[in-house]
Amino acid sequence: MQHGLIIDEIDDIQPDTVLVLGIPFDQYSSYRRGPAFAPPRIRQALHGGSANLCAESGWDLGADPNWRDLGDLVLPDGDAALGVIEESVGRLLERGAKLLSLGGDHIVTYPILRAYARAYPELTVLHLDAHPDLYDQLHNNRFSHACPFARIMEEKLVTRLVQVGIRTMNPHQREQADRFGVELIEAWAWSRRPALDLQGPLYVSLDLDVLDPAFAPGVSHHEPGGLSTRDLLEFIKNLPANVVGADIVEYNPERDHCEMTAMVAAKLAKEIIARMLDR
Amino acid sequence: MQHGLIIDEIDDIQPDTVLVLGIPFDQYSSYRRGPAFAPPRIRQALHGGSANLCAESGWDLGADPNWRDLGDLVLPDGDAALGVIEESVGRLLERGAKLLSLGGDHIVTYPILRAYARAYPELTVLHLDAHPDLYDQLHNNRFSHACPFARIMEEKLVTRLVQVGIRTMNPHQREQADRFGVELIEAWAWSRRPALDLQGPLYVSLDLDVLDPAFAPGVSHHEPGGLSTRDLLEFIKNLPANVVGADIVEYNPERDHCEMTAMVAAKLAKEIIARMLDR
Amino acid sequence: MQHGLIIDEIDDIQPDTVLVLGIPFDQYSSYRRGPAFAPPRIRQALHGGSANLCAESGWDLGADPNWRDLGDLVLPDGDAALGVIEESVGRLLERGAKLLSLGGDHIVTYPILRAYARAYPELTVLHLDAHPDLYDQLHNNRFSHACPFARIMEEKLVTRLVQVGIRTMNPHQREQADRFGVELIEAWAWSRRPALDLQGPLYVSLDLDVLDPAFAPGVSHHEPGGLSTRDLLEFIKNLPANVVGADIVEYNPERDHCEMTAMVAAKLAKEIIARMLDR
Amino acid sequence: MQHGLIIDEIDDIQPDTVLVLGIPFDQYSSYRRGPAFAPPRIRQALHGGSANLCAESGWDLGADPNWRDLGDLVLPDGDAALGVIEESVGRLLERGAKLLSLGGDHIVTYPILRAYARAYPELTVLHLDAHPDLYDQLHNNRFSHACPFARIMEEKLVTRLVQVGIRTMNPHQREQADRFGVELIEAWAWSRRPALDLQGPLYVSLDLDVLDPAFAPGVSHHEPGGLSTRDLLEFIKNLPANVVGADIVEYNPERDHCEMTAMVAAKLAKEIIARMLDR
Amino acid sequence: MQHGLIIDEIDDIQPDTVLVLGIPFDQYSSYRRGPAFAPPRIRQALHGGSANLCAESGWDLGADPNWRDLGDLVLPDGDAALGVIEESVGRLLERGAKLLSLGGDHIVTYPILRAYARAYPELTVLHLDAHPDLYDQLHNNRFSHACPFARIMEEKLVTRLVQVGIRTMNPHQREQADRFGVELIEAWAWSRRPALDLQGPLYVSLDLDVLDPAFAPGVSHHEPGGLSTRDLLEFIKNLPANVVGADIVEYNPERDHCEMTAMVAAKLAKEIIARMLDR
Amino acid sequence: MQHGLIIDEIDDIQPDTVLVLGIPFDQYSSYRRGPAFAPPRIRQALHGGSANLCAESGWDLGADPNWRDLGDLVLPDGDAALGVIEESVGRLLERGAKLLSLGGDHIVTYPILRAYARAYPELTVLHLDAHPDLYDQLHNNRFSHACPFARIMEEKLVTRLVQVGIRTMNPHQREQADRFGVELIEAWAWSRRPALDLQGPLYVSLDLDVLDPAFAPGVSHHEPGGLSTRDLLEFIKNLPANVVGADIVEYNPERDHCEMTAMVAAKLAKEIIARMLDR
Repeated sequence: MQHGLIIDEIDDIQPDTVLVLGIPFDQYSSYRRGPAFAPPRIRQALHGGSANLCAESGWDLGADPNWRDLGDLVLPDGDAALGVIEESVGRLLERGAKLLSLGGDHIVTYPILRAYARAYPELTVLHLDAHPDLYDQLHNNRFSHACPFARIMEEKLVTRLVQVGIRTMNPHQREQADRFGVELIEAWAWSRRPALDLQGPLYVSLDLDVLDPAFAPGVSHHEPGGLSTRDLLEFIKNLPANVVGADIVEYNPERDHCEMTAMVAAKLAKEIIARMLDR
Repeated sequence: MQHGLIIDEIDDIQPDTVLVLGIPFDQYSSYRRGPAFAPPRIRQALHGGSANLCAESGWDLGADPNWRDLGDLVLPDGDAALGVIEESVGRLLERGAKLLSLGGDHIVTYPILRAYARAYPELTVLHLDAHPDLYDQLHNNRFSHACPFARIMEEKLVTRLVQVGIRTMNPHQREQADRFGVELIEAWAWSRRPALDLQGPLYVSLDLDVLDPAFAPGVSHHEPGGLSTRDLLEFIKNLPANVVGADIVEYNPERDHCEMTAMVAAKLAKEIIARMLDR
Repeated sequence: MQHGLIIDEIDDIQPDTVLVLGIPFDQYSSYRRGPAFAPPRIRQALHGGSANLCAESGWDLGADPNWRDLGDLVLPDGDAALGVIEESVGRLLERGAKLLSLGGDHIVTYPILRAYARAYPELTVLHLDAHPDLYDQLHNNRFSHACPFARIMEEKLVTRLVQVGIRTMNPHQREQADRFGVELIEAWAWSRRPALDLQGPLYVSLDLDVLDPAFAPGVSHHEPGGLSTRDLLEFIKNLPANVVGADIVEYNPERDHCEMTAMVAAKLAKEIIARMLDR
Repeated sequence: MQHGLIIDEIDDIQPDTVLVLGIPFDQYSSYRRGPAFAPPRIRQALHGGSANLCAESGWDLGADPNWRDLGDLVLPDGDAALGVIEESVGRLLERGAKLLSLGGDHIVTYPILRAYARAYPELTVLHLDAHPDLYDQLHNNRFSHACPFARIMEEKLVTRLVQVGIRTMNPHQREQADRFGVELIEAWAWSRRPALDLQGPLYVSLDLDVLDPAFAPGVSHHEPGGLSTRDLLEFIKNLPANVVGADIVEYNPERDHCEMTAMVAAKLAKEIIARMLDR
Repeated sequence: MQHGLIIDEIDDIQPDTVLVLGIPFDQYSSYRRGPAFAPPRIRQALHGGSANLCAESGWDLGADPNWRDLGDLVLPDGDAALGVIEESVGRLLERGAKLLSLGGDHIVTYPILRAYARAYPELTVLHLDAHPDLYDQLHNNRFSHACPFARIMEEKLVTRLVQVGIRTMNPHQREQADRFGVELIEAWAWSRRPALDLQGPLYVSLDLDVLDPAFAPGVSHHEPGGLSTRDLLEFIKNLPANVVGADIVEYNPERDHCEMTAMVAAKLAKEIIARMLDR
Repeated sequence: MQHGLIIDEIDDIQPDTVLVLGIPFDQYSSYRRGPAFAPPRIRQALHGGSANLCAESGWDLGADPNWRDLGDLVLPDGDAALGVIEESVGRLLERGAKLLSLGGDHIVTYPILRAYARAYPELTVLHLDAHPDLYDQLHNNRFSHACPFARIMEEKLVTRLVQVGIRTMNPHQREQADRFGVELIEAWAWSRRPALDLQGPLYVSLDLDVLDPAFAPGVSHHEPGGLSTRDLLEFIKNLPANVVGADIVEYNPERDHCEMTAMVAAKLAKEIIARMLDR
């Protein structure tokens, strides 16, 4: 089977279309596999008939031609996968599209942002997560899902990194955050957070474990003390409309209860698409 | 087996007694069966010995003769069930009783309110739900659990309908809401809701999915972003004492975790009975 | 096998060291066994590699020699267990250590506080729980896990008892609370609680069911309407540093989902140790 | 509420009618509560629409007037419950009926057989179980669910006891079995068991843990190495038709997966009723 | 999105290639939805890395070009879906291919066999199932998943129908079986079944509930007393090599435990493909 | 904490004592972590009070001084762990003891057999497993849990290797089996297996996935079509008494249902100890 996009004919994609793309990759998860199985589950939650396709604003995703689901990337084993992700995303950005990727563990954000860096020389990343993912390496792996933002900042792929919801900072990661100039809104500070001035193109990287495990049990690493789903929905709905890309990562169906977290991912996906299309 | 109330001798019921009645009906659930199995589970949670029978005010349900559990209705298959529900509820209201029904999917509210409409010409309904349930029809069924409030408003069974917690409005349902003059407090507006002026007899229709799935996983349709149990408890405890009827619907034991949601239903039932008896 | 501490050589323990001790006892649980299995599960959550050993302040438990894990007590069957707990804790307190016990049902707090009473003639207990545990007896058992604080107050083991998060007061228990002069912050009053003036040595007795079952499903008795994990974390992080002892009880692994509640217990343990060491 | 049968008018019961009766009792379970919740779950499995009401012979239970469901006994707390069970069963046997009881832990067989002893001076009991339940006492309780057959044999309530499927014999219980002249077919001997000569009235006491936990996970004590459901079905279908009574005990819904074991209990109930009616 | 095959270019398919096709359809399931979600789960079990792609003969599916996975059909809502299934399968059969469909409820066998009837005027169907699926209608629906073989036999789509593993025959279905000349090997007769003389082209319709629920919990209707997985594997491995088509239906992921049943389906799929290719 | 045995004083161990030792290691599991958490779960199942400590022969483990539980090994991270296992086991064998190890993934058998090779120059290994574990390497790791028997045979640690229950042979592994002279009884051949002539000292390596997932769901890799627990129990009970060592590996508590598989492991442990002591 050929690797990359399953639908090769992407010539008819209009600029500013929002493209949804599944990325089934979790080979560098340090502890529990699972996020590679996420994309079809989130799609089922979106389309399965248990809910409708409207955002909370009332806008009907089902009737809007300005977004499109490209299915899942076909990926090779091992390190080559990162290259295929970067190359595929790059092709879509060349068409002027905006990407929302679903699934995979957090390392997928690294090749995605390598592609974005070429298209957007000035990019702000809003990173929602329980963990800063700034490890230099983990278990001798510099591409572990605990490391993407160390790679991203070292390569200067983005101009600004704002992390929200963090609650597992250790001394090494705090040092990395200082070194890279990361802006931090830790979970304990959420309820008294300052206003964020988010100018210019914005990329949202959403690790579902930013939510408390009560709201999102289907993640590899439960880290108690997180946001509620309502908190997160309102935060996203109030973002400025200059969101040019996003990912929803770390959904682990093996840990979920009755697909509850897939439904959370699907609802967040709808609201993020609404922001990208300014609906 | 005869349909209707399992205890025929209801002549000794005193006016203003609160009657608890299980309604095991879910034949028109569009997606997942289960709510028909709810009544015995909620009773187990109430009586099973894991908690006591006191409301948070300290009032002891177990020592108060002003309420009574009538067991479950015996229902025929199909459409005839709706008639049996309406007729049985009507008989209880004729004795001056107040009803709290447990279980079933949301369509049961329709025959219940047909009976209430004869007893209470002016009735306000407080409808707590993630969904407006205002569809004209779903899958060609006008009695789907997605439709009860369309039927109720068309037949002018109640004078006022206030919906709280809604977070799945689509264009069709918003149109219906406008047409019927429904008052809306959507989930996003909960934390800044206005005071509700609830005069006259009040009926509370409580779909457990008004709660976030984290608090009530045992429902057919998970809709993230809902209320917390504490939010809902305080809301109910602060209602005026003119509650003349209520239902707790859409508990689906097949989706629950360790009967957690049955316990939520049982605790809410205690507080609603306390309101009905002004304890 | 000999009963008591598995490591007999405790002569080298320095004063003010925090000792973690598992107490696998649940024989007097009225309804569901399970808390006896808690200690190894909470340890797995602490050490299992899914999270790091840092408190939210950034302090690294893994690099601090001022605490130590003593493993689990070895307990005989039946009433004799309570004596072994009291005697073992007494030996540790004689060395000037501070204790954090993990696991067991709530009756373990009674023998622990019998030992503390000898070491701390003035002791304030902060009791976080959904239930007041003030029953005179339950099912003819005066040592049921519903009774410890009745025993503790009768024997005047502590000078002040503050209960937080209670939401199942019945008339008998309210009478007991009045008789013993218990200070109460019920769950409904949490969001408007007064400042607590906690002078002198403080003992924290933490029943995990003070949390809402959404956040801590792995407890024997689900009591909806409790605190969120974030609420509880901030409350503990803001305690004064005079915490001289603590327990985390009532974790029931048979009711948990994917060890979610074990992770909550482990995170709370880290923050409590941080308070005990003033880190 | 009055204790005993919920339907008092049993005068119209015809001799040889098979009566189904739920017995919600598990207060003497040594380890895990749960069997008290069994009766409504087994009824749901029988009637819930997931299967039909035919035995494997094709005989349609749903169309046969010679059996009747009496609902559940209403039981007082504690020891008094055993007296109510004995008295209620006695009343039914006086009308010439045959009883199939559903639910409860195994101690319920003791009061049932006290009633049978009066009606049937010569009675053979076929006891299907992983455990011999012959303890003289357990945890100082002579009415533990580990003891019923010690009580039954001491009181000489039956003339013959044949135990099938046993796989947890310890020295004490083997001594008891020898003393009482119990006939044993242990689980390891099942596949080479001799023909059983079962003359005269027969009572079948079926503990669901005679099945391997793979087939019946919903029991309090998993004991691997048991029978398959097909083995047990064929064994029951080939019993002689002189079955005058039976019980299905120890179903524990808290341990089940998707009501799988409730379905096993319901299917076995159909085949046992077929044997009692010789269909 | 266009309905039908997602890959339109099928011109290069060689005769006798085995094609795997997912059919996500369960709209006529009478009781529980779910089988529509089966195809991606079974694919994950096949390819997910937890096992290899070899049949028990050692033949390596992963290295054989004579089969191909076409992905899932895209289906419209309602009755139109049956037409799309029939038409799509017909197109594949015209190319001389052999089909193994995965997923859906059992009604999908009806449109599949309508297409097969045109390609194979003499076809024997081996139907493995707990239920005969011969209802004339169920809940007024002649296309319920309880009805496919009534439709198939009425329309004389096949010349011989052999049902194996049946254990829920009721009088109506036995009458239907007699009327249509169905050959029956009920579950109770499995261990003493006669040799089957299966000449000519053979189609295998495999409902996973032919297995005991212990082996395949992930089905909508648990019917205890079924085959073991080993029984079924040996039966399939010993079929003659003239298998020209097959389906694996009624996998319901909502009822599964840790994807156990998906793995059973995947293993059976491998052995069926091996039979179709005579490996 | 020091690595190795937690109890250093082993001088009083008598020759031929059976020692039980937990080995919490799973860092080389290719797919799912979990077996490192196995030892305390299997101990709970042995001692937790849900069953007794007798083997099926009636022999009471609880009253026999000829075995002893040494607790768990304390292991360093990474490759060093294998050395600590080998060294610790070596020390026990030097005292003339026999070892039963519990837990870990299958690679632990490699260092164990390195120690055994020094004590037993002629050793037969009976390897019960769904998988041959003969990979030369997996994902570039020669110490993956898929590789131990390749390492063991290359180093000629044992004189004879008999594999029973295998059902996932691929061409590479069959080649390895041929090269090393492995004797094979595949799962399909189990029911017609020849008598095994097992002379001399015997080591039993028991991977719980030799059982069908229905009987042992708590393993990392479900491979349907395996043995029943009864099959395996009888096989072990009929082994000759020259069993000098054994391991029970690959229990994965994250996949279990209500500790069902822990109970299977505990029961098998009792029967293996009985064989080692010839009881």
